[in-house]
Amino acid sequence: MKIAVFPGTFDPITLGHTDIIDRSLDMFDKIIVGIGVNSNKLPMFPIEQRINWIKNIYKEEKKIEVLSYSGLTVNFCESVKAQFIIRGLRTVSDFEYEKAISDMNQLLNPQIETIFLACTAKYSSFSSTMVRDVIRNNGDSSLFLPMEIHHPISMAQQEFQKK
Amino acid sequence: MKIAVFPGTFDPITLGHTDIIDRSLDMFDKIIVGIGVNSNKLPMFPIEQRINWIKNIYKEEKKIEVLSYSGLTVNFCESVKAQFIIRGLRTVSDFEYEKAISDMNQLLNPQIETIFLACTAKYSSFSSTMVRDVIRNNGDSSLFLPMEIHHPISMAQQEFQKK
Amino acid sequence: MKIAVFPGTFDPITLGHTDIIDRSLDMFDKIIVGIGVNSNKLPMFPIEQRINWIKNIYKEEKKIEVLSYSGLTVNFCESVKAQFIIRGLRTVSDFEYEKAISDMNQLLNPQIETIFLACTAKYSSFSSTMVRDVIRNNGDSSLFLPMEIHHPISMAQQEFQKK
Amino acid sequence: MKIAVFPGTFDPITLGHTDIIDRSLDMFDKIIVGIGVNSNKLPMFPIEQRINWIKNIYKEEKKIEVLSYSGLTVNFCESVKAQFIIRGLRTVSDFEYEKAISDMNQLLNPQIETIFLACTAKYSSFSSTMVRDVIRNNGDSSLFLPMEIHHPISMAQQEFQKK
Amino acid sequence: MKIAVFPGTFDPITLGHTDIIDRSLDMFDKIIVGIGVNSNKLPMFPIEQRINWIKNIYKEEKKIEVLSYSGLTVNFCESVKAQFIIRGLRTVSDFEYEKAISDMNQLLNPQIETIFLACTAKYSSFSSTMVRDVIRNNGDSSLFLPMEIHHPISMAQQEFQKK
Amino acid sequence: MKIAVFPGTFDPITLGHTDIIDRSLDMFDKIIVGIGVNSNKLPMFPIEQRINWIKNIYKEEKKIEVLSYSGLTVNFCESVKAQFIIRGLRTVSDFEYEKAISDMNQLLNPQIETIFLACTAKYSSFSSTMVRDVIRNNGDSSLFLPMEIHHPISMAQQEFQKK
Repeated sequence: MKIAVFPGTFDPITLGHTDIIDRSLDMFDKIIVGIGVNSNKLPMFPIEQRINWIKNIYKEEKKIEVLSYSGLTVNFCESVKAQFIIRGLRTVSDFEYEKAISDMNQLLNPQIETIFLACTAKYSSFSSTMVRDVIRNNGDSSLFLPMEIHHPISMAQQEFQKK
Repeated sequence: MKIAVFPGTFDPITLGHTDIIDRSLDMFDKIIVGIGVNSNKLPMFPIEQRINWIKNIYKEEKKIEVLSYSGLTVNFCESVKAQFIIRGLRTVSDFEYEKAISDMNQLLNPQIETIFLACTAKYSSFSSTMVRDVIRNNGDSSLFLPMEIHHPISMAQQEFQKK
Repeated sequence: MKIAVFPGTFDPITLGHTDIIDRSLDMFDKIIVGIGVNSNKLPMFPIEQRINWIKNIYKEEKKIEVLSYSGLTVNFCESVKAQFIIRGLRTVSDFEYEKAISDMNQLLNPQIETIFLACTAKYSSFSSTMVRDVIRNNGDSSLFLPMEIHHPISMAQQEFQKK
Repeated sequence: MKIAVFPGTFDPITLGHTDIIDRSLDMFDKIIVGIGVNSNKLPMFPIEQRINWIKNIYKEEKKIEVLSYSGLTVNFCESVKAQFIIRGLRTVSDFEYEKAISDMNQLLNPQIETIFLACTAKYSSFSSTMVRDVIRNNGDSSLFLPMEIHHPISMAQQEFQKK
Repeated sequence: MKIAVFPGTFDPITLGHTDIIDRSLDMFDKIIVGIGVNSNKLPMFPIEQRINWIKNIYKEEKKIEVLSYSGLTVNFCESVKAQFIIRGLRTVSDFEYEKAISDMNQLLNPQIETIFLACTAKYSSFSSTMVRDVIRNNGDSSLFLPMEIHHPISMAQQEFQKK
Repeated sequence: MKIAVFPGTFDPITLGHTDIIDRSLDMFDKIIVGIGVNSNKLPMFPIEQRINWIKNIYKEEKKIEVLSYSGLTVNFCESVKAQFIIRGLRTVSDFEYEKAISDMNQLLNPQIETIFLACTAKYSSFSSTMVRDVIRNNGDSSLFLPMEIHHPISMAQQEFQKK
């Protein structure tokens, strides 16, 4: 059984993320979307909300599981018996950063292989950072987000405007 | 009437910035230097000072206007009826970052076009971050700055040293 | 009057090229598509054909002119009284190459300014080299080409297959 | 059944190539090493030799098949019923080049997915071009090559020196 | 007498750093490892500990001296009469960042030359940031660290786990 | 005695090359400018001319020697007892190419160290390829060339125009 982890912060999940997940489905028997919890970084959306959004988007897809984790990604992979890590590559700076992490992970556990997909051209400039900026400033965030979360994000956006 | 916005933090404006402005003048009827105010980032110099410095540098140049703004750059462009955004490119990492923002802005408002100029070679390693570092540590910041602000910055520098 | 040259080999013109031309139209009074003739590089399509294809695509657009030239691009700009060169940027390696040429041109003639546009995300992996490869190997080149040349290229493709 | 093509020129196969193949084995049921034959590029080693070398290296590995092909890689994938293309990434310029090809292939056939692996750090500067340079100039090519071809390459090297 | 400064934060020193120091020894008569103290950045390990670790690693090497400094690196070089700055290059983004600093330093003091070495391939993905992440999360940090500090870091690691 | 090789084609030598040589002089006791002769690449200027031009530029500088060589650069270094190779870095693509060669050379002979200098900003877009293009097309090549070869190159340029 081929199990892969797709790690990230997903704050929030974008069309760039779902593109990578959808294109990876044929390759694996199970894909665990692993939401890394980092005590130093304050997220825009609470972890429960981020988990539920992804679960909702993939509610018909049996192969997808959503979990949160803290600590090293390789340790999380070991705990869920995943042999693969999936990462999307948008830019040259993504590539350099991801290559260094992939090298480090290979040293920490040579049994776990990192698989890269190049982001589809039209999504390759989407980042959660920019999407959060659009949300915060009341722009049209639906351009960048899966349909299933247009409504909840637009609700959140109204909350942000009131502050 | 061709109106362009040159957005940035200008904390402080450097010879790299004025090079881009000077070389863009022929292309547009009006250039609005837009100083983005970001509540999360504490600037070295107060916004009024940054506005006045740029106004002073271009006091003879009728085409230049200086304004501050908050929120999304495309929204600011709409409010001042600008159809163009000007950006300078120094490095590969600049290029990738700017390309992503330009893509996002094109999605948010396809009527607004981002125009890039490559920084003149001799200025292509100047950044406001480095200049602030030189100022903070009492180095010769005048190498990097327009003549008109040598004196005020050197005054500010003496203040920083006292702290 | 603002005149710009958009130089290239256009062997053949792709959707990536027309995207840059279309987005530049508002900025200039005239855009001269300059097809560089390089005695060392054997093109796939004869120069007359390349000129006619571009003229045909823009036959309704008064601002566009199509010319061939040999020698330095700055000299061609001088001869047609253009003050601007337009270039599209797809990738990091494009950027570095174009920046060096833009620097050199600025030394050769400081009156001529190079203006860059970032290629629209969905076209940013299109290159004439790859399109020629698709044509040569009988792939579906229409995915990458302006509608007006689908038919002539498909005719040419049949010729290539016979060889 | 998951079938992948690992396309390349393999002129000759290096430790960088075998690293990618070995690390991909767990992911697929069959890996077809596809040696692209390009009429414009004169190889250092004849196609039969390159095929035999790879077959010899993987003679114990049932999952590996070695074939030559000409034309577009996606067409070759279709003909061998492969749904995946495997590519190794060494450098930033590799990444940009491969991303463009992967985008083009996704347009030509959206059913075929390109999977990238980052080359193991110690092999990430190995290229067939450099290895050919070492062979041609009588350097110690065995540093870069799988053990199984040390002897045949060293034989070839003596031939090159005689010329 | 040729004196070089190897500046950095060394929080902690890694095998990537010692590789650069070891390979620079033949070139210079004295190498001063300069630990920059930055009031804005809270280090993982106190400055005394970082100094002692490096002194301990090079206790047999007469050419190495270890000092801390604050302020601009060129000023530190002047104070210790160093004509050279040594920097290691791992990645493209390292290169761009270091090139800009090297340019700025050349403007501030043209007598001081920055010398770059490319990190040895197998260490080129090691960064102190990642190593700190491994330490914090109780991974096997000894893979990335000089032997002499395996024990003290492992002690520190146990402390971090208790928190 | 510290001996370094500065390898290249120098077809012709530019201000970018002399900048690197001049800045390296303090570091070494002897610098051998090594002109690589490559049977596959037809140069613009004959090897004797390229040697004489460099000798002439550095006729007052006792530390500089000029030699031609063929084969691997490390072998040339061994034959002239050089422990160092000097290379200038202009761009990101330079860096990646040079890093790969530096890695390969370190494998072939670990005693030979490659030292990089970042090209001075104002020369960082100069390349022999572009300079040859300017010469061929009768542009003002003196902008890019050491004073000592302005006259001979301008003579050569007149010859090229006659063809």
